[in-house]
Amino acid sequence: MSMKRDPESLNAVAELRDALRQFAADRDWEQFHSPKNLAIALSVEAAELLEHFQWLNDASSAQLPPEKLALVREELADVLLYLIRLADKLGLDLLVAAGDKLEKNALKYPVAKARGSSKKYTEL
Amino acid sequence: MSMKRDPESLNAVAELRDALRQFAADRDWEQFHSPKNLAIALSVEAAELLEHFQWLNDASSAQLPPEKLALVREELADVLLYLIRLADKLGLDLLVAAGDKLEKNALKYPVAKARGSSKKYTEL
Amino acid sequence: MSMKRDPESLNAVAELRDALRQFAADRDWEQFHSPKNLAIALSVEAAELLEHFQWLNDASSAQLPPEKLALVREELADVLLYLIRLADKLGLDLLVAAGDKLEKNALKYPVAKARGSSKKYTEL
Amino acid sequence: MSMKRDPESLNAVAELRDALRQFAADRDWEQFHSPKNLAIALSVEAAELLEHFQWLNDASSAQLPPEKLALVREELADVLLYLIRLADKLGLDLLVAAGDKLEKNALKYPVAKARGSSKKYTEL
Repeated sequence: MSMKRDPESLNAVAELRDALRQFAADRDWEQFHSPKNLAIALSVEAAELLEHFQWLNDASSAQLPPEKLALVREELADVLLYLIRLADKLGLDLLVAAGDKLEKNALKYPVAKARGSSKKYTEL
Repeated sequence: MSMKRDPESLNAVAELRDALRQFAADRDWEQFHSPKNLAIALSVEAAELLEHFQWLNDASSAQLPPEKLALVREELADVLLYLIRLADKLGLDLLVAAGDKLEKNALKYPVAKARGSSKKYTEL
Repeated sequence: MSMKRDPESLNAVAELRDALRQFAADRDWEQFHSPKNLAIALSVEAAELLEHFQWLNDASSAQLPPEKLALVREELADVLLYLIRLADKLGLDLLVAAGDKLEKNALKYPVAKARGSSKKYTEL
Repeated sequence: MSMKRDPESLNAVAELRDALRQFAADRDWEQFHSPKNLAIALSVEAAELLEHFQWLNDASSAQLPPEKLALVREELADVLLYLIRLADKLGLDLLVAAGDKLEKNALKYPVAKARGSSKKYTEL
């Protein structure tokens, strides 16, 4: 498999999506990639990511030693790969969806009301 | 907040990252965004996504009715937004990490060995 | 459905197990209760539980206001109910399994080595 | 640590709770056991349990080979142990909470309405 990805390119996410399609096709793994199974896999990977932080305090979680950061980086990557794959199987454009959601959040939490109010935040 | 996102642009993920930085700064929410808390939020969103699929069979999970698909689309977006935010707080380039991981997976599961072997797959 | 549970009784967990069997049979829900689906449901409920704590600091998480504690109590209950149900479908005795695991943990983390070592703990 | 647990006894869950208290005290691990951290650990363990089922179909998930069932049994145990510990730290009686929730569910899903309606079920 040649990936020729280029994060600086026009469409790095689209390239990852295409590479993942090829990856599954080459291995005859389409049969396992129902949206349900991909949603499970995504959730499991997110928990593996969380596991690295589970006994740390907030400050330590921002100062991971290099070898732990490398492991966390791989888990972040796994989450993104399953997320791209799941969106693809559902026919959704992940980046447009994220942009739309961010706009919705901006309306839901207006700066004037949300600012400096941790109490508000805890009720999200 | 003006987002001016453009999924077709050079760097849609970088634009989302910058918009999320601004979003948190505007609301004074940086204080809540430790990597630990963001990893929790990511995991919770991934579970909310999974919840939509939990009682469906595989076939049904690929044919969601429009109103359910719209909800799933928002959850996918939430996962991506927290993922971008977490990577940013850790100083990691999410797309490069995903490309690297995909290459690693290609070496781990060579086509010749993985192909057609569901048994192999279940041992991932 | 008459539950007649008695937490002080000889076998409160077994009574819950039996009540859950009846609950599913009465509603013809056995068809949905594959171990796979129950494991998903358990994971989703655990995330709903976690959601209540996600933006709190450690101290606040130990001093939940009464109305929040009531919600957390229901999520804890949901997790236990799915756990009992899943163990039942797999033919496992949950309490014996937990006792065995605790003994195994005692061997894995001897007091003399584990004591006072937070570093050790973070490597669990 | 002597556990002397007896699943047939009056109060197996209370015995596990007490053993877990002693376990943490012996190792000076109380400092890590905030409800927030325990809720994270519970969620991570639930995902590790789910991981065993993620690529299986429903039928296979009910027929695990013995070596896999043994691993699943340990994950089930971990979930229960963290659940008991978390309930204890929050001052909640887990069994009473579960009984109450089951009664509430019985009211929420009356047999006459829920029976034979998979559609209803998917809207839980």
